[in-house]
Amino acid sequence: MTDTTEFFEGIGPIRYAGPASDDPLTYRWYDADRVVAGRRMEDQLRMAVCYWHSFVWPGSDIFGEGTLDRPWNAPGLEPMAAARRKMAAAFEFFAKLATPFFCFHDRDIAPAGDTFAESCARLDAMVDEAIGHMERSGVRLLWGTANLFSHPRYAAGSATNPDPEVFAHAAAQVCHVLEATHRMGGANYVLWGGREGYDTLLNTDLVREEAQLARFLHLVVEHKHRIGFAGSILIEPKPAEPAKHQYDHDAATVAGFLARHGLEGEVLVNLEGNHATLAGHSFHHEVATAVATGVFGSIDANRGDPQNGWDTDQFPTSVEECTLVLYEILADGGFTTGGINFDTKLRRQSVARDDLFHGHVGAVDTMARALLAAASLLESGALADRKTARYAGWDEPLGARILGGSATLADLHRLVLDEELDPTPDSGRQELLENLVNRHVERTR
Amino acid sequence: MTDTTEFFEGIGPIRYAGPASDDPLTYRWYDADRVVAGRRMEDQLRMAVCYWHSFVWPGSDIFGEGTLDRPWNAPGLEPMAAARRKMAAAFEFFAKLATPFFCFHDRDIAPAGDTFAESCARLDAMVDEAIGHMERSGVRLLWGTANLFSHPRYAAGSATNPDPEVFAHAAAQVCHVLEATHRMGGANYVLWGGREGYDTLLNTDLVREEAQLARFLHLVVEHKHRIGFAGSILIEPKPAEPAKHQYDHDAATVAGFLARHGLEGEVLVNLEGNHATLAGHSFHHEVATAVATGVFGSIDANRGDPQNGWDTDQFPTSVEECTLVLYEILADGGFTTGGINFDTKLRRQSVARDDLFHGHVGAVDTMARALLAAASLLESGALADRKTARYAGWDEPLGARILGGSATLADLHRLVLDEELDPTPDSGRQELLENLVNRHVERTR
Amino acid sequence: MTDTTEFFEGIGPIRYAGPASDDPLTYRWYDADRVVAGRRMEDQLRMAVCYWHSFVWPGSDIFGEGTLDRPWNAPGLEPMAAARRKMAAAFEFFAKLATPFFCFHDRDIAPAGDTFAESCARLDAMVDEAIGHMERSGVRLLWGTANLFSHPRYAAGSATNPDPEVFAHAAAQVCHVLEATHRMGGANYVLWGGREGYDTLLNTDLVREEAQLARFLHLVVEHKHRIGFAGSILIEPKPAEPAKHQYDHDAATVAGFLARHGLEGEVLVNLEGNHATLAGHSFHHEVATAVATGVFGSIDANRGDPQNGWDTDQFPTSVEECTLVLYEILADGGFTTGGINFDTKLRRQSVARDDLFHGHVGAVDTMARALLAAASLLESGALADRKTARYAGWDEPLGARILGGSATLADLHRLVLDEELDPTPDSGRQELLENLVNRHVERTR
Amino acid sequence: MTDTTEFFEGIGPIRYAGPASDDPLTYRWYDADRVVAGRRMEDQLRMAVCYWHSFVWPGSDIFGEGTLDRPWNAPGLEPMAAARRKMAAAFEFFAKLATPFFCFHDRDIAPAGDTFAESCARLDAMVDEAIGHMERSGVRLLWGTANLFSHPRYAAGSATNPDPEVFAHAAAQVCHVLEATHRMGGANYVLWGGREGYDTLLNTDLVREEAQLARFLHLVVEHKHRIGFAGSILIEPKPAEPAKHQYDHDAATVAGFLARHGLEGEVLVNLEGNHATLAGHSFHHEVATAVATGVFGSIDANRGDPQNGWDTDQFPTSVEECTLVLYEILADGGFTTGGINFDTKLRRQSVARDDLFHGHVGAVDTMARALLAAASLLESGALADRKTARYAGWDEPLGARILGGSATLADLHRLVLDEELDPTPDSGRQELLENLVNRHVERTR
Repeated sequence: MTDTTEFFEGIGPIRYAGPASDDPLTYRWYDADRVVAGRRMEDQLRMAVCYWHSFVWPGSDIFGEGTLDRPWNAPGLEPMAAARRKMAAAFEFFAKLATPFFCFHDRDIAPAGDTFAESCARLDAMVDEAIGHMERSGVRLLWGTANLFSHPRYAAGSATNPDPEVFAHAAAQVCHVLEATHRMGGANYVLWGGREGYDTLLNTDLVREEAQLARFLHLVVEHKHRIGFAGSILIEPKPAEPAKHQYDHDAATVAGFLARHGLEGEVLVNLEGNHATLAGHSFHHEVATAVATGVFGSIDANRGDPQNGWDTDQFPTSVEECTLVLYEILADGGFTTGGINFDTKLRRQSVARDDLFHGHVGAVDTMARALLAAASLLESGALADRKTARYAGWDEPLGARILGGSATLADLHRLVLDEELDPTPDSGRQELLENLVNRHVERTR
Repeated sequence: MTDTTEFFEGIGPIRYAGPASDDPLTYRWYDADRVVAGRRMEDQLRMAVCYWHSFVWPGSDIFGEGTLDRPWNAPGLEPMAAARRKMAAAFEFFAKLATPFFCFHDRDIAPAGDTFAESCARLDAMVDEAIGHMERSGVRLLWGTANLFSHPRYAAGSATNPDPEVFAHAAAQVCHVLEATHRMGGANYVLWGGREGYDTLLNTDLVREEAQLARFLHLVVEHKHRIGFAGSILIEPKPAEPAKHQYDHDAATVAGFLARHGLEGEVLVNLEGNHATLAGHSFHHEVATAVATGVFGSIDANRGDPQNGWDTDQFPTSVEECTLVLYEILADGGFTTGGINFDTKLRRQSVARDDLFHGHVGAVDTMARALLAAASLLESGALADRKTARYAGWDEPLGARILGGSATLADLHRLVLDEELDPTPDSGRQELLENLVNRHVERTR
Repeated sequence: MTDTTEFFEGIGPIRYAGPASDDPLTYRWYDADRVVAGRRMEDQLRMAVCYWHSFVWPGSDIFGEGTLDRPWNAPGLEPMAAARRKMAAAFEFFAKLATPFFCFHDRDIAPAGDTFAESCARLDAMVDEAIGHMERSGVRLLWGTANLFSHPRYAAGSATNPDPEVFAHAAAQVCHVLEATHRMGGANYVLWGGREGYDTLLNTDLVREEAQLARFLHLVVEHKHRIGFAGSILIEPKPAEPAKHQYDHDAATVAGFLARHGLEGEVLVNLEGNHATLAGHSFHHEVATAVATGVFGSIDANRGDPQNGWDTDQFPTSVEECTLVLYEILADGGFTTGGINFDTKLRRQSVARDDLFHGHVGAVDTMARALLAAASLLESGALADRKTARYAGWDEPLGARILGGSATLADLHRLVLDEELDPTPDSGRQELLENLVNRHVERTR
Repeated sequence: MTDTTEFFEGIGPIRYAGPASDDPLTYRWYDADRVVAGRRMEDQLRMAVCYWHSFVWPGSDIFGEGTLDRPWNAPGLEPMAAARRKMAAAFEFFAKLATPFFCFHDRDIAPAGDTFAESCARLDAMVDEAIGHMERSGVRLLWGTANLFSHPRYAAGSATNPDPEVFAHAAAQVCHVLEATHRMGGANYVLWGGREGYDTLLNTDLVREEAQLARFLHLVVEHKHRIGFAGSILIEPKPAEPAKHQYDHDAATVAGFLARHGLEGEVLVNLEGNHATLAGHSFHHEVATAVATGVFGSIDANRGDPQNGWDTDQFPTSVEECTLVLYEILADGGFTTGGINFDTKLRRQSVARDDLFHGHVGAVDTMARALLAAASLLESGALADRKTARYAGWDEPLGARILGGSATLADLHRLVLDEELDPTPDSGRQELLENLVNRHVERTR
């Protein structure tokens, strides 16, 4: 029986009230039905709430206990009853926030059992429960994933574990969650390899571990096709944490790995803002790199703290930064199966239950406003036109000859000697372009 | 006529004097003929002095003028006479240091002319001059390279420039230097893409620029084969500086790029310690990654300042760190065409001429001592044996079935269910292994 | 005779044209006479152009030559004629940009002579020249400063040099520039200690160097009073670069240093955005810390690249970030002698002369828009009211007893025991407050 | 009744076996009675094991559960019985490791009760238990401390909390633990302010919080004197984590804070290696700065991962780095009340019980070997003599006149003009000095 407690009494549903609204629990910018760049905002942004940070995490950190007021996690209940209660809270929140998607790990929605069989049975039961909630609420699944990092068995990795039995365990777990995701109509399946990496090279065989990881992905891809799952398989890059070094370091590293193992076109990436900055990149860079290398899939929209060297998973609040991210995605045609997952958590001091709404409402509006700015920038054609002009020489004879492969190094040597080529640089116009972007951001209405 | 001034009067040649020597201008560890891991030390380490930092750089930094006492760079001489004088100083130093190799850029040894033709003629003359010095001194060329980053024409990149005429210019310059390197019997040819990247994504077409870079490399590889150059073509990864972001970010990124463009086996990497740390990696990591992905070529042995975010190019002084680097290289069979280039510069306050010796003597001894420790570690088999044991399961039936591809995801799901697999982790033994490495370092004799 | 060449033909003066303007060389937000938070925008922001990056720097970086089109720096002129030409260009730019202030180093405006006497004479002549320009244009001096870092004599520091003669030289130079600044009606005098620090602790006596630095500052303060200079003496914190470690690390370190040496109230700080981020702080943090410790003076408004570990000195473009900075300054009563100096330089690819306008126009508008948002936030009282409420307990009996010093540790032990104090945390409301700030930013009109 | 289980069967006591020992559970360098720099090694190093990481922490991290084999933490026991069992394990370990000290937080050794009174009673009981162990084993207490960061009440700080009742609670807790530390004969009392800082400036009153923190320290100092505790009160700087920004940022910040609040001479610092690197400093820098500003007290010897931006608390293994740290301490006269606490934890994969020995044995030997190198360096006088020579000018007339205050800025201006002072820099000799240090490290016997 589904729990009927209302956990967020007196709040929501969150409605669009326009830019002038002073009610912090309304949307000023997210107007689901407004058409932006040819689609409804809801369909362009495909926003999802994550289950783990919002409904499971108690507000603990590495130096302290949980702080948050989370009545659905009160101790003492039988595990499956507790899981149902938590799920009721989650779907109440999803519905009230009025965003279309959610994301989950197997262990978020269903407690592990004493055996793998029991874990599977529990997960199946909770998937049924979730499907009921989904049907009632209209909330959909952006992606599912298996937790291959919390249990001690995965301390030395899952696919890249030195013990093949651990690989088998991880494979079994992914098999089950991939099928569950399929059953729930999930749009994607995500793999995050937080333990796929090393703590020290002194005990690590990089060649073996890379081969294991590639094998694992091939198994997942084959199974996806076998069961007819039409969603995308996504890797989520992160450079480190918890492992000292993680193999799925950043978009470029993953793109290279996929190419070296014949996985191009079968596996894409789910890029997180905070992971980008931990890797020494801007979020903009990661998205642009993934688009350019053909591996772009989906994003986890959050932000790190530029002064802190760990994953803070804060709610995105910078319209300036998110505009550039969404510009790249729109310019690439927008999301297909992907979307925007808020892999975000409250600060540990944000103990009140309604803080969960404040965090998400701000994040949703940030993405909505960034979408408007990005669409304006795209529709103006200003950046694209300038790029075309800047590289125009490459469509002319010399450029075409070079790229076409008909000129050798010696030919070019002769050409420069004979024609005394001495090209003069044009301005890169960075400051002008930055101002131009700002103009689109500030004019958003 | 070659300059006969002695620039380092009263110094050198630097001789091996053993660990007990208190003379700072002797080698305590570098004993060229001592056989370590099956080769003479000189042949294992293949150490080179770089021309640019040691003989061209005046001690300037971004906030201040040159400080160093470099009489060979005194102003007022006719450019080619000055170049000959500088070369005389360099070869005096190489010979006195008694390391077997050097490395250079075209612009280090020969001043640019008013036209490309004049630049080529000057370079040819200085290459002749260098060949004379090489014959007299026995000093060899580890690698040559073209400076594709200092001239304003390269501000927006060389191969990745939006203007194909700049690409042509870069190609012509590389063509010339590659041939010069071949004439000088160089063991490798290096490409460092300090401007191959972007300052802002707002004006950058990543897809075009990657295609240009790949085309450039193919041209270089084709030309190498055409002229019969037997050395390796090496890319030198660096994440940033001078560009905001550089495409040859780190070993993994370059390995992926090579794979995506059919350049595997044709192009290897020259890894620098300081570049590794700027990329958020240990030098050990970069070398191990390059070895594991089959792209390892050569190293630039220097160190960065862990508290400073730019390329400080300091002399390597940590035996602890270099032992791990050389261990990976030895375990891979040692250098083939590659070697150890000291891409190092003095601190700006080290104004005395003999400081150039102190820096290099310390660096040479650091690498020599690290080689002894690495060889000891390798010969003990301790790390290798432990790795073999750790992954032993992968050579047994389950591991073989998984990697061999005969088990599907569903098979593994069934296996875990049926056999109730619940593997228990073994200790990763990181602390024990770190202590073991230290034991080999401290026992070096 | 003053040069009458127009260097920026066809550009400017830059005028306020309102938010709807599409002309990139107009102000959309900077409306000098608009009253914001009780003062004209011009008087609130007190914006200055820096001489060095804009008129001296040729577009060189550590890996490459100058790239910029700077006809006033064309080689071949007699040094003082060249200095006058450069100054004419600078004042043409200041006037056309229509910002009220500029800033300079002695060596920016006048070339060093062969002797200190000649350097002084040249500086005096150029100060006269500048005063003429200032009178004609109405442009004022925000601050002057002496370049104590470029000349080789300062390689090991100026005040903190191991050689007292270098200290004397630095003192003499500051004496001269401080008097020049006074003569020009400068509002402040700045000291940046780029070489006041160490490259290695192995050769550095921290105790001596700190005593030297303190002595130097006392000398400057005494001289200021002696000559009747009414402006502020400002230290500019930076953690490193060019030195490995710089003593004026950040605002908190400087505040501590001033307290330990009896310089509180006499010396304030000039805080730079990029220096803050290099120190591992937000610019907001640095300003708030300086305000809280009573050392706030002025700012260098620029931005670093969060992915690059060196001083990139980019034009500020983030209204989101600058709003928080200006909020702290406004909440502290606004600038007194201080102001906003754009210690900013173009990207090396921004070679066109008008790029200098694009960079500054964007920066001026960023600060203007941020001022409007900050003033709105301040006037709403929202942040201040919430802070007052949050700390209200400290104005009640228990808080007053503790801070008043009448309760001992043992008293508080007893109190907690006896009254079973077990306070419940309130939410810190971080997400709600971040959304609130965003609301003020986005509503700026 | 004390638990009599032996938790580390078959291990220890760890004995000195000399450099040639291949038994990983012997000391190769730590020979407690060997006299180094005038004291027994044991008395020079004053090494301590920390209770929290070694006996409380289960091997969990932010992404995963505990992994370690820790039978003393097996669930199910009554809390006080469990505490006794854990303490028995700890003292067995201390005794077997044969290092002289340990360190603890109140919550490590005694579980919190339902009320503060119960917590105090439990702590008192466990302190009695500890005293028994100490008497039997001879193990002493280097320092005690109160955990003011784990409980939700401290989420917004303890002394710097917006709620004075939380301040009172923290004061009460420190009062109790300070007295317990006194009773146990502790040599120091430490305060670590992991939550004394802010998560966002938007809700933080820096002026109030600094005043609160200063008041708190004054209360602690007064109480120390009142009860006759002769040990030192130590602040442990850390820049961030768990708070976004922590007030006790680094040694220089704390020295400034103490000066501004009249706490100089009463409060010293306990410096941690990993905290130094998180603050953007070398450990060497932090120790040298604390010594120079007169606030040096004690150290937490561990290391961070230079590629990871959080506190990894690894065992120190670099003799090269620790030599410089111990050199500064020895040159300052060695530890007085302070010592070396291993605030170190195993990697999460080091699940075996004996790994706890491997980690510590390596750390102890690292410090012992570094002590030998540091003493050799100190006794040679090489660094000190060079520093004296480098600054010799400051003991001559000009230097003395400047520092003595008899020369004004104008005097120095005149002097430079009249005498045409133009000092020539001497070499800073950094490379030579680095080689010199290496010579002492490598010769350690």
